[in-house]
Amino acid sequence: MENNKQISIAVIRRLPRYLRYLKELLDKDIERISSKELSISMNITASQIRQDLNNFGCFGQQGYGYNVESLYLEIKKLLGLFRTYNLIIIGAGNIGQALINYENFALQGFRIIGIFDVNPKIIGFSFKGNEVRDMDTLGEFIDENEIDIAVLTLPKSKTLEVAKFLSEKNVKGIWNFSNLDIQDIKNTKIENVHLSDSLMTLSYKLNE
Amino acid sequence: MENNKQISIAVIRRLPRYLRYLKELLDKDIERISSKELSISMNITASQIRQDLNNFGCFGQQGYGYNVESLYLEIKKLLGLFRTYNLIIIGAGNIGQALINYENFALQGFRIIGIFDVNPKIIGFSFKGNEVRDMDTLGEFIDENEIDIAVLTLPKSKTLEVAKFLSEKNVKGIWNFSNLDIQDIKNTKIENVHLSDSLMTLSYKLNE
Repeated sequence: MENNKQISIAVIRRLPRYLRYLKELLDKDIERISSKELSISMNITASQIRQDLNNFGCFGQQGYGYNVESLYLEIKKLLGLFRTYNLIIIGAGNIGQALINYENFALQGFRIIGIFDVNPKIIGFSFKGNEVRDMDTLGEFIDENEIDIAVLTLPKSKTLEVAKFLSEKNVKGIWNFSNLDIQDIKNTKIENVHLSDSLMTLSYKLNE
Repeated sequence: MENNKQISIAVIRRLPRYLRYLKELLDKDIERISSKELSISMNITASQIRQDLNNFGCFGQQGYGYNVESLYLEIKKLLGLFRTYNLIIIGAGNIGQALINYENFALQGFRIIGIFDVNPKIIGFSFKGNEVRDMDTLGEFIDENEIDIAVLTLPKSKTLEVAKFLSEKNVKGIWNFSNLDIQDIKNTKIENVHLSDSLMTLSYKLNE
């Protein structure tokens, strides 16, 4: 594999989609696929696919295409999916609960090991074997457990304060659903999620 | 504005982010901004910004930059946000409820006018003034109301069947949270959401 450093974030963001399609092909015992076939099923141009995959040294062979399994493994490796991640969820509201109930995360190596909330009515409740803990005990929990990623489903007004605290506590990743864009803090990488972005992409398509 | 047809979907997907930043600037009464300043606050290269905005005929002026308000209005227009959309939510589980409770959608012109579920325990419950209706009454409701977008938060196994039904009923847009990629059906545009895609982007960053 080539040096990853030059791969743009736009390409990285497309990789999970490749991974899904390749997994489907693997499950159907399909051994190889051309960029053209991949293009049809994924609804992306073949040239875009070749360009994306060339980025990390995966060149399809003329008349053969791509080997499905090795491409799948390469992308999985690139996305850091050959290890497990310990997650905590901060904010046990609807989005938090939806994420807790989403079984695919565990299959992909993302394990929820703690849930936190400030609401006394919800503290002590158990979701999928995880008791909701008092926010006041967050620091202690992080000190005692290895946390890779904190998922923030908090009110906007609390987000930056909690993100800074997590960064001080050396949590390496924050997956932020709080509808507030925050940038990386020191060594903490932050991925902001805005559900309405894709809704706006849909409204664009409806007016095309 | 130039003809939109050539604008790639990758550019369109970045527009909601521009819109958010421009809104923040507007709220601070900032009249103009250079691609360089926008670049710093959005963490995108200035050249990418110029390239993106050139796509739809917005050229910054040398020594002036972009007019914040006109750029904001242009992007809002392009995304089809100068009208309202009637939404129905199909599946009143955690994700469905999170979307119902998300107040920003209404502010952006997306109005939830119906909620449907198959679960008798939840049918009849009211969320934000919307009663959960029996899935059996979906067809009738669509016939009697103008629905622009159906939001699917259903089990994967039911998704395609329901999407086909909605397309036959001439619902123009589907926002699909069912973790199953479906492609546009006839005149119905489909936008698939995979929450784990951005989680994988984060795991990539943690291993960079």
